[in-house]
This record gives sequence, structure tokens and C-alpha cells, in this order.
Amino acid sequence: MQETLSRIREEKPLVHQITNYVTVNDAANITLYWGGLPVMADAKEEVAEMVQAAQALVLNIGTLNQRQVSSMIKAGKQANRSGIPVILDPVGVGATTFRTETARRILDELQVAVIKGNQGEISILAEGQGEVRGVESVGDYEELVANAQGLAAAEEAVVVVSGTKDIVTDGETVYKVNNGHPLLGEIVGTGCMLGSTLGVFTGVSDDYLAASLTAVTAYGIAGEIASKKASKPASYKTAFMDSISELTDETVINHEEITKL
Amino acid sequence: MQETLSRIREEKPLVHQITNYVTVNDAANITLYWGGLPVMADAKEEVAEMVQAAQALVLNIGTLNQRQVSSMIKAGKQANRSGIPVILDPVGVGATTFRTETARRILDELQVAVIKGNQGEISILAEGQGEVRGVESVGDYEELVANAQGLAAAEEAVVVVSGTKDIVTDGETVYKVNNGHPLLGEIVGTGCMLGSTLGVFTGVSDDYLAASLTAVTAYGIAGEIASKKASKPASYKTAFMDSISELTDETVINHEEITKL
Amino acid sequence: MQETLSRIREEKPLVHQITNYVTVNDAANITLYWGGLPVMADAKEEVAEMVQAAQALVLNIGTLNQRQVSSMIKAGKQANRSGIPVILDPVGVGATTFRTETARRILDELQVAVIKGNQGEISILAEGQGEVRGVESVGDYEELVANAQGLAAAEEAVVVVSGTKDIVTDGETVYKVNNGHPLLGEIVGTGCMLGSTLGVFTGVSDDYLAASLTAVTAYGIAGEIASKKASKPASYKTAFMDSISELTDETVINHEEITKL
Repeated sequence: MQETLSRIREEKPLVHQITNYVTVNDAANITLYWGGLPVMADAKEEVAEMVQAAQALVLNIGTLNQRQVSSMIKAGKQANRSGIPVILDPVGVGATTFRTETARRILDELQVAVIKGNQGEISILAEGQGEVRGVESVGDYEELVANAQGLAAAEEAVVVVSGTKDIVTDGETVYKVNNGHPLLGEIVGTGCMLGSTLGVFTGVSDDYLAASLTAVTAYGIAGEIASKKASKPASYKTAFMDSISELTDETVINHEEITKL
Repeated sequence: MQETLSRIREEKPLVHQITNYVTVNDAANITLYWGGLPVMADAKEEVAEMVQAAQALVLNIGTLNQRQVSSMIKAGKQANRSGIPVILDPVGVGATTFRTETARRILDELQVAVIKGNQGEISILAEGQGEVRGVESVGDYEELVANAQGLAAAEEAVVVVSGTKDIVTDGETVYKVNNGHPLLGEIVGTGCMLGSTLGVFTGVSDDYLAASLTAVTAYGIAGEIASKKASKPASYKTAFMDSISELTDETVINHEEITKL
Repeated sequence: MQETLSRIREEKPLVHQITNYVTVNDAANITLYWGGLPVMADAKEEVAEMVQAAQALVLNIGTLNQRQVSSMIKAGKQANRSGIPVILDPVGVGATTFRTETARRILDELQVAVIKGNQGEISILAEGQGEVRGVESVGDYEELVANAQGLAAAEEAVVVVSGTKDIVTDGETVYKVNNGHPLLGEIVGTGCMLGSTLGVFTGVSDDYLAASLTAVTAYGIAGEIASKKASKPASYKTAFMDSISELTDETVINHEEITKL
């Protein structure tokens, strides 16, 4: 565990996000609540210039279109040149050929630091890496871990699988994070906001595995704290966002439920 | 009245929505809170493929542009081939030629299951169907009913007119729904969210008239319940969203104020 | 001080906004909560027609792209012809060449009634007007006032600089507004919502300086009132939005902290 939160609030990393228009407001707010600064530019005329001022780049394909994909590649190449982390959130990969091809293209053309997805998304991306053993494998925790590890190794990236028990791995070491709350699954945008969170945390640390592990854990703990204040989804979302803004390293360290597999 | 809510929560209909970027987050959340699953794809490369996985398609022209309109037509044609309901929310029709032509084009090229609009929007669309008797007719309830019926008959669709007293008609039978609360008119997005709601409800029932009637009634009742918890618009919105998530068929049946005209 | 709020609630000005997709929902809601009517059209096919029905036009370059910029120019020219105020919110100007060139192009091709920015944005725009004395000048209040005045004079516009102490000037008269609350800086969208607010207020008054001054003051007072109800950002945002909806001219007059410099 790193004392990342205090560093975020000191350094205020600028997180450039090319993301979907469904959850973009949540993504911007959570970035700010953690202590980072969000910027959401996606025009080809400016993404390369914008990313040069940033400490991390988040690519989220939730409502992708051809124009946006070109901007993602352009921004990503500049991020790679600048040595800042690229976080890929392959929303809905596998649902359409366009999404699958775009996610693969991003992984082929860019060096991605962190890939974050749910069980289905990570399994789809692991396919072709010889790690998926049929669609029915989704849900089997052991096979999911193998898929995540395979994908991480193949892409030389940290892989984060969100779910009841989150997985964080760099292909070798595998962590299981038990923090979190079922209510997080009952509001739109918690997946996307975790992607933004990974941008904020890797934006202040070169150790992407440790930063991702801390990010996932802190996020889950904020979700637990919020569940004590609200039980219905819209109120819970407000409580969750509030919890983010006042979370401290101490709380994270005291409440983490991380297991090294 | 159908016991639709329990069915929604069992079947979790996927509702594909091509919609405006103003209220898209609300549309996604309300879909989830009812028990459905939202997906917001609008790229021409993927809409036809995405809609094949869906149980309903919502088309909302709130911030339309040429690219999005092409995707709407493409997705709509596939929805027609697949036999899933298409819900049209003709936001702002009549305000510009582009909106009016687009709404008409959608009605001409697609078989729409439900058309939902406010009084002005429905009256505009009824025009040319020989049912509008001058712009001054807007506000006159009897003429509005005639307009809704005429449009429904001409388009072989269910027509929902939102307002103080909602109208739901298939051209023959006409229902008036007295449920609802004035505060729903004081927040942005309640019209769009009703469109998403119609997608969720028709996504689990082949009887689009009954499903639309239940949807409109349940929506209004959630609005009434929320008014007991909050009286200012932003708080009311949170209370309304929370109410949606815990509404039951029993509550709907006990509180419905439906009149068959 | 004008009794603007009662006039807004009577006249319900339609405020056409071409804005970013990050805060567009907030912009629409705050417009409605003040008593105005928001419309968010940005397609080149309809902007000129839509703006003809509006009482003000807000141009916000937060997530600009080429398609949107063309629509801004087109809508702006029609707004000028119609004699309604154009409000420019040059979000992030200076961060990229594209943003800077777009903001300059808007100022060159349109007659802008109000330019609203933070200290950095206004200083960037004042550059080339011979009023910026180096980037280090940002933060120095006196130089900021000189920059705002210079820009206002050069563009024949009202300039609003948001910050701890807001500045409102037409180039000659300069007002400092001490109302506001630090929590406004801890949520995403308060800058954009101030832009929408300026649209609403100038939409009911020909005296753009007085209307802007009242808008900035009322906005800050709503922020103060909200701070008594919530201290964490997400809850504060809800409280702030609620405060807007029930603010009266009387409250504004009683709480204003305006100094004429």
C-alpha cells in the first residue's frame, strides 16, 4: 500500500480523458474529488497538445465513434512518447465488432499501462492470448485470474478486473481486493469512474501495479463508507462521491482487504 | 394494469438508446433503476449489431446531428427486422425544420411502436394527418386527444402525450393518467427519462399499449412518492430516482389513477 | 442592482447553448432553476433557426470540435443579426492552439456581449491587447483588473472574471464581487454554470453590465446559502442547485457584497 492520496492532493495530477458522453460528468467530478484535475478534450486538432500537459491519459470506448478513435490513437502515441500512463477502459468490448477491433487496435498501436474491465471484457480481450477457455469460463474465478494474468503478460500492462472480488495483476503477482459494496453495481458509471481513478493514481506514481492496487482498494472502501449513509442508488451515488472527497491514506490502510494470491 | 415491474427485474431488458448528450446520464440511470440494462451506442459502425442484442430501441432527437440520424435509421431498421419495439421521443419537433424533417423521416422509414411527446410535439406530428386544428388548439384537451388518436392511427403506434394528465392511446382506446407531480416539470430530463422508461416496459411485453400505460402510471407514481421527500428540484431529482428503484407492482396497482375515456 | 430574478421568472428567456458534453446537464438544469428555458442544439442544419427563437446564446468551448465551432459561428452570426446577447465561455483557452484560435475567431467574427473566464483564461485573451505583462502577472489582482478592462474595451464587451473576488467590467466601470464560496471551486461545472447564468440574466435585460453584475452576485449568494446546508462536494452541488431555484431578488439585494473600484 502506498500513501498515494496525500501525494495526489499535493501534486494535483492532470488527467486527460477521452471518454463516453454518458458518464463523462461523473468521471470529471471523481477526478476532482480525489484531488486530480480533469480535462476532457477529444478533437484531433488538440489532443496531442493537451496530453503533453497531463500526467495520465484515460481512454474509454463507451460511446466510441471513428472521430474519437482517431483522437485516442493520436493522444495515446503522444502519451507514450511523453512517458505518461495510458489507461484503457474497453467498455462493452465483445458486444460489437467495432468495439472489439478498436480495443485491439489500441492495444496494438499503444503501450497501455493499465487495462481495466469487468469479467466479460477482460475475458474477451484475453481471447487470442490462449487464455480463454470458452465463454462459459466467465464467472469461474480461477480461470478469470488466469485470463487476467495472460492478458497482463501479453500486453506488459497491469490488468484490473472489477467485480465482487477485484483482481489486480501485472501478469506475475496477483492481488485480490475484497473491498467494495454491491450498491456500486446499481448505479451507472462506477466502472468508468474506476477508470478515471486509475488515471489519477497512476498519474502520481511510476509503480503502476502498486498505484492500481491502491486505487482499486481506496475506491472500494469509499463504496463501503457510503453504504452506511445511503441505501438507495441515487442517494448512494451522492454519498459515494462525498466519501471519495474525504478519504485519507490512513482510512485506506486501516480498511484494506487485499490478499496476495 | 400489468405486473410489469417484477417481469422487468427478472428479465433485465437491454434498452439500446440513441439519445441526446444533455440527459443521457439520467436516461441510463433510470433504465438501470427500473431493472433494465442501458446501452448508448450511436456509431454507424456498430448500431445495427448492438441493437440485435437489445429488447427495445429508444430514439431521442434532443441534440440530433446528421451522423446520429443516420445511425438512428440504421438501428431502427434492424430493430424492425428483429421485431423489437422502437420508441420515438421527438424532442423539440417543430422548433426547427431539421427536427421536424428528422422526426417525419423516422416515422416514414421505420415502424415505430411508441411515440412519446409533450402536447406541442404530438400536435406538430399530428399535423398533416388532418387532425390538427390550428396551433391554437394546443392546450385544448379534447383536441389533444383527437390529435393523439389521429397520430396513433396513422402511424399504427401507441401515442403517449405527457402533461398534467397524460394520454396513452393506440388510436382506438384512450387512457388518461392522472398520476404525476408538478415537480417533474421543474427538472431537466423528465421527458427523456419517460422515453427510456417506455423502452424498458415495452422491452418485456408484446402488448405495447398496456406496457406504455403501466410505464406512464408507474413513472407518475414514483414522482408522487418523491414529492413527499423533497420539494426543491435537485433534491427532488435524487428522491425521484430513488423512488424508481424501489417501486413495486403492488404500489403501482394501489395508486394508479387511470381513466378510460 | 436590478430586480432581475422576478423578471426572469416572468419572461422565461430561452437560452440557446452550444456547450461541452461534460457539464451540459448542469448547464441545462441551472438555466431551468433560474427560471429560464434551456435548449442545447448544435447541428449546423438547425442552429441558425433555433437561435431565432432564443433570448440569449451561450458559446462554451469546453469540448470543442470543428463541427461544433462552425455551428457556433453560424449561430453567433444569427444572434448578432437578431440583436440577442452572445456569451462566450472560453474554457481552457491557452491550453491548446486550437482553443486559443477558436476563442479568437469567435471574438473576431462575432460581436460578443459578455466574455466570462477564470483569471488565466481572461489573461490569455487579453494578450495581444497590450494588457498582459507576462504569465507571472496571473494572480496579481491589479494587473488582472487591467487585463479585464483592456479586453472589455477592445472587444466592446462586458468581461467577467470568476475567482475568489469576481470582477465585472465593461472596460470603464469595474465592479468587484465578494460573494461566493470556496466549495464552488470543488465541483466540476461551476464555471460553465456561471456562463449559462449570464445567458439567462442578459436574456431579460439590455443593460449587459448590470445584468452580468447581478448574475455573478446572485450566483455567489446561492453558493453561500448552500454552504450552510452541505460541506462535501456532491451534496453541496445538490444544495447549490436547490438554492438557485428559490433565490429571490430580495435575498440578492440583502446579501450583495459589491464594490465599485
